[in-house]
Amino acid sequence: MIVAMAQTATEEEIQYVMSRMMDLGFNVHRTTGTVQTVLAGVGTPIVFDVKDFEVMKGVAEAVRITSPYKLAGRMWKPEGTVVRFANGVEVGGKEVVVMAGPCSVESREQIFTAAAQVKASGAKFLRGGAFKPRSSPYSFQGMGLEGLKLLREVGDATGLLIISEVMEISQIELMMPYVDVFQIGARNMQNFNLLREIGQVRKPTLLKRGIAATIEELLLSAEYILAGGNYDVMLCERGIRTFETYTRNTMDISAIPVIKTLSHLPMLGDPSHGVGRRDKVPPMARAAVAAGADGLLIEVHPNPDKAVSDGAQTLFPEQFEKLMEELRMIAPAVGRKIG
Amino acid sequence: MIVAMAQTATEEEIQYVMSRMMDLGFNVHRTTGTVQTVLAGVGTPIVFDVKDFEVMKGVAEAVRITSPYKLAGRMWKPEGTVVRFANGVEVGGKEVVVMAGPCSVESREQIFTAAAQVKASGAKFLRGGAFKPRSSPYSFQGMGLEGLKLLREVGDATGLLIISEVMEISQIELMMPYVDVFQIGARNMQNFNLLREIGQVRKPTLLKRGIAATIEELLLSAEYILAGGNYDVMLCERGIRTFETYTRNTMDISAIPVIKTLSHLPMLGDPSHGVGRRDKVPPMARAAVAAGADGLLIEVHPNPDKAVSDGAQTLFPEQFEKLMEELRMIAPAVGRKIG
Amino acid sequence: MIVAMAQTATEEEIQYVMSRMMDLGFNVHRTTGTVQTVLAGVGTPIVFDVKDFEVMKGVAEAVRITSPYKLAGRMWKPEGTVVRFANGVEVGGKEVVVMAGPCSVESREQIFTAAAQVKASGAKFLRGGAFKPRSSPYSFQGMGLEGLKLLREVGDATGLLIISEVMEISQIELMMPYVDVFQIGARNMQNFNLLREIGQVRKPTLLKRGIAATIEELLLSAEYILAGGNYDVMLCERGIRTFETYTRNTMDISAIPVIKTLSHLPMLGDPSHGVGRRDKVPPMARAAVAAGADGLLIEVHPNPDKAVSDGAQTLFPEQFEKLMEELRMIAPAVGRKIG
Amino acid sequence: MIVAMAQTATEEEIQYVMSRMMDLGFNVHRTTGTVQTVLAGVGTPIVFDVKDFEVMKGVAEAVRITSPYKLAGRMWKPEGTVVRFANGVEVGGKEVVVMAGPCSVESREQIFTAAAQVKASGAKFLRGGAFKPRSSPYSFQGMGLEGLKLLREVGDATGLLIISEVMEISQIELMMPYVDVFQIGARNMQNFNLLREIGQVRKPTLLKRGIAATIEELLLSAEYILAGGNYDVMLCERGIRTFETYTRNTMDISAIPVIKTLSHLPMLGDPSHGVGRRDKVPPMARAAVAAGADGLLIEVHPNPDKAVSDGAQTLFPEQFEKLMEELRMIAPAVGRKIG
Repeated sequence: MIVAMAQTATEEEIQYVMSRMMDLGFNVHRTTGTVQTVLAGVGTPIVFDVKDFEVMKGVAEAVRITSPYKLAGRMWKPEGTVVRFANGVEVGGKEVVVMAGPCSVESREQIFTAAAQVKASGAKFLRGGAFKPRSSPYSFQGMGLEGLKLLREVGDATGLLIISEVMEISQIELMMPYVDVFQIGARNMQNFNLLREIGQVRKPTLLKRGIAATIEELLLSAEYILAGGNYDVMLCERGIRTFETYTRNTMDISAIPVIKTLSHLPMLGDPSHGVGRRDKVPPMARAAVAAGADGLLIEVHPNPDKAVSDGAQTLFPEQFEKLMEELRMIAPAVGRKIG
Repeated sequence: MIVAMAQTATEEEIQYVMSRMMDLGFNVHRTTGTVQTVLAGVGTPIVFDVKDFEVMKGVAEAVRITSPYKLAGRMWKPEGTVVRFANGVEVGGKEVVVMAGPCSVESREQIFTAAAQVKASGAKFLRGGAFKPRSSPYSFQGMGLEGLKLLREVGDATGLLIISEVMEISQIELMMPYVDVFQIGARNMQNFNLLREIGQVRKPTLLKRGIAATIEELLLSAEYILAGGNYDVMLCERGIRTFETYTRNTMDISAIPVIKTLSHLPMLGDPSHGVGRRDKVPPMARAAVAAGADGLLIEVHPNPDKAVSDGAQTLFPEQFEKLMEELRMIAPAVGRKIG
Repeated sequence: MIVAMAQTATEEEIQYVMSRMMDLGFNVHRTTGTVQTVLAGVGTPIVFDVKDFEVMKGVAEAVRITSPYKLAGRMWKPEGTVVRFANGVEVGGKEVVVMAGPCSVESREQIFTAAAQVKASGAKFLRGGAFKPRSSPYSFQGMGLEGLKLLREVGDATGLLIISEVMEISQIELMMPYVDVFQIGARNMQNFNLLREIGQVRKPTLLKRGIAATIEELLLSAEYILAGGNYDVMLCERGIRTFETYTRNTMDISAIPVIKTLSHLPMLGDPSHGVGRRDKVPPMARAAVAAGADGLLIEVHPNPDKAVSDGAQTLFPEQFEKLMEELRMIAPAVGRKIG
Repeated sequence: MIVAMAQTATEEEIQYVMSRMMDLGFNVHRTTGTVQTVLAGVGTPIVFDVKDFEVMKGVAEAVRITSPYKLAGRMWKPEGTVVRFANGVEVGGKEVVVMAGPCSVESREQIFTAAAQVKASGAKFLRGGAFKPRSSPYSFQGMGLEGLKLLREVGDATGLLIISEVMEISQIELMMPYVDVFQIGARNMQNFNLLREIGQVRKPTLLKRGIAATIEELLLSAEYILAGGNYDVMLCERGIRTFETYTRNTMDISAIPVIKTLSHLPMLGDPSHGVGRRDKVPPMARAAVAAGADGLLIEVHPNPDKAVSDGAQTLFPEQFEKLMEELRMIAPAVGRKIG
């Protein structure tokens, strides 16, 4: 941490700030300039709030230098993490992996049809929600356990890996036998109790960025999971909230290369939620791969017009098929391939 | 709902859109202009996604007219809701009520000292966290049940009502005997399972706006609680995330009068989280009251410099005392008083 | 400036960064910790781009410590600036001053009526636009010179000071004889050529914050004017753009106390543009005064329903009258008064 | 326009709203539902402010249906605009065109070296600023006329087309002989006087989106130019301001396909300003092309470390060379090519 004292700071104020820095475990180096005194705290306490220093008397500015996360950072693990699955699929490896399927599991017929379609086009994972967090209390809320069983059945039948969203601690054990990847949604990105529990299980987890979360906050949330010993964490950009209203969210494509620099974790993109409009999903999927994403989450439904949720952002199977062909042309430009 | 068809829309496309509107229960009135056809869906289905129509072929624009919430709206209940407590305190009545206290319960001595101080200055509620959701896994996480017991004890001793944050469903029953108001924090504003459960209990609840939540989304979350039969809901503005970084968040003071217009529920302001800097809390508290807030949440600690959490935004007791005097001068300008 | 080198930085990289810092005129103090090397640049070059250092090889983080503005800062001039006018009116003094009037000058009758009304309620300045920048090319564009003459005439007749917006360099000389204060609108806050020219004249100027401008950027724009020798600069918050759409902009009330801390310049609020809805203007005007504003800009029109521009955010004269009474009750709470 | 009246609206209020709609030239169709009355205004007045209706007594909601721009919309001109230059280069055609070069013209040697480098890699346009709007009054402000002459000279020598920024009306005539494309920067996107004047000239113009401008506002600004008869307008996304601070701005890649749908004008991307960090420029350039951009603006300098402005976001020539190769691989995936 660096604390720049105000020009008008008294010696007493400087001493007080120094003592508080030392309390936290910093070695403090003092630089007395002609204009102001600067205190450099060297050392590695990561639990402190730089805001506490900003409001101390005589302080002009306080800046945290070391990042507040460790295990999620590339400094800690320079080579990229590859999440490996029993069937040989890898996320974070040479191949860009695609996870596709409907927003919600609606019926046996729907999910089996969807699975066959996305597999035929090259998806490696089937996505589908069993518990649906909806902003209106009057909307469809998901098939629950029955949906999970259908997912497992279709996964076993097709060889597709299953990813589904876990919304609260009590669902972890329930979902454990049925899914291959836990998905933590944007609204739960800072549900720290849930993150801590997921850190205790040994199952790959995909963590989505919250709509108002900075990149640093996403990495700090990943840290919660990693700190528990669950190292198979994948991250996902799915749009942030801005002033633009034409798209549901603004998909921050730059977060993909930024996170690939800051962290060793695989980084995916979810254009369906990122823009919220079917016709804009293919261009954003292409953009994500061109920017270096390790994979994509895409909503596909046998008949989006009849989908019980998120229909507006869901691709028709033939749109998905065409998109996959385009992605196969783009991947080599970034040294990747798509199966 | 209004659907404006594109100039180029075919009759078939128009018929398809009309049939989908009728499927939802709308009576559809068609207006055929020289330029474009406009479809007005009259009726009151509230469960539909206007985005589904936006992406249909031939549609230029689709607009929801009726608000997606009902019970939370003033149309449903024109007079303002007053939340009444056993000791005669009312939120939403003539008096502007102040809820004050430390971010976290830290010790018996700390919480008893804080309670005496805020009561002496005129607060009617004591706030204090027992479970602390923190963005870093390495930070203090709260005293838990022991903290709740201390809160109840000091509440009974002083006559202050107790408000404390509930973070997950499993804590509801645990907290029930100890608190007078459940607080739902900004990060849980769209934790719909938690909202639904809180709707089932009969205890006043204060719901904070999420940092990326629109006013409409806040009211929709309130709807979840009201729909369960728990009508004692209070709302609270505590800052939204914007591009400005000098303050931790940007406190949207205008949300106070806007929500007083749209909803019958009491609306409070939390300047401590709203700006995140101690020296800016008093001006924002005054602004909130001047804008018509029914109450305030303010962090006060016997010694903020030693607080285990949120110290930078916490007032010293003497600052709080002075602020209360200023608020007493402002309240009459908006036809209110402060006890 | 502080530059924190990455853990992996080589000695060569460190030397390169140090040499670049010295090129800029910094005295560089090097602190070699067990984890990383930190370079503190002491001295006062203000013309450099901290981003240049962020992207240098081996750099983990670079932070500017000294603010990029000088003349606008309180460090440079601790006591507040008071802008004084010939008729004894002061902005930044004991009194909260109110500038009111229509968006556009529309006719002789309209502006004389408006002037009489706002004066009767206590306004000290008459505002009115002669040149109207409009987002649509098909809208009314202002009365131009004729409007300026009407403003001067009504100003002389009533004793109200005149404030009107200057939109480009060529208008400065034209407007000079007719107005008492130049207003620079939000869209021109970073029109640096215009700012530089205004710095050369000797007439008070009110500079509005851009809708996407940080507080620091507003102060940097003020610096342009001050650097030219025009010290009578007033600042104004008029809403920033956020994701909330119920209000036209989100009025950042906290910018008022923040700027009063960072700068010595008078700070006003413009609730009309801040929220863009007539019924929300009074609560936000009250909030601005309660937060410490030195003055207000408020749109008032004899008949807002017939106003050629901005009618939706313009008060009826009787609303303005009532508001002024409320403001007179609030001002003493912040040690101020309203004439 | 659609106006939904409140449930409580009186017949008198409804009549008043209808009369105001008719005043504007709308044919009004009234739909009286069981809950509320809806008024559909059919017709094509484009000059009105929907906010005026929102605040009328008895109105629940007012929605503009027809877009406020015409000439910029695809409805008006379904086929895409292709901007053609004398040397055969086309923007908006089959080829994705790249405009590259330094932020500022600094010297004869610098600009000739840069031109040779970008041409060798496949750029068709040379960019370079002669007038530099800078946020600090203490920074380098450009070479002015001398810079323009150098641009023309190097353009003639190499066959590269010249694009340079015009900052105010007085520069239009000055720049006319020297540049092939006028660039209007983000800060001037709503400088309506400048836009109107550019509408009067007959030279292709590239208009950048402002950092706080919605897509609709960008198209409305283009409308100003088109309305004057200058139809050779190109648009450009260069990043919007959001809460994320790791990148200078957030480049809204989705604006590219959205604008390609709404408008017939060519749409480019500027990743240099979009992210502001050199290492993130190539991934965002690739993303823009993958999303369907008609072209790119990229800052390239013979030695970015010594650039007088924007060095941090400027590519080294060898980085640009590599990027162009990657782009050539991506273009066919969207049915395009790069020369």
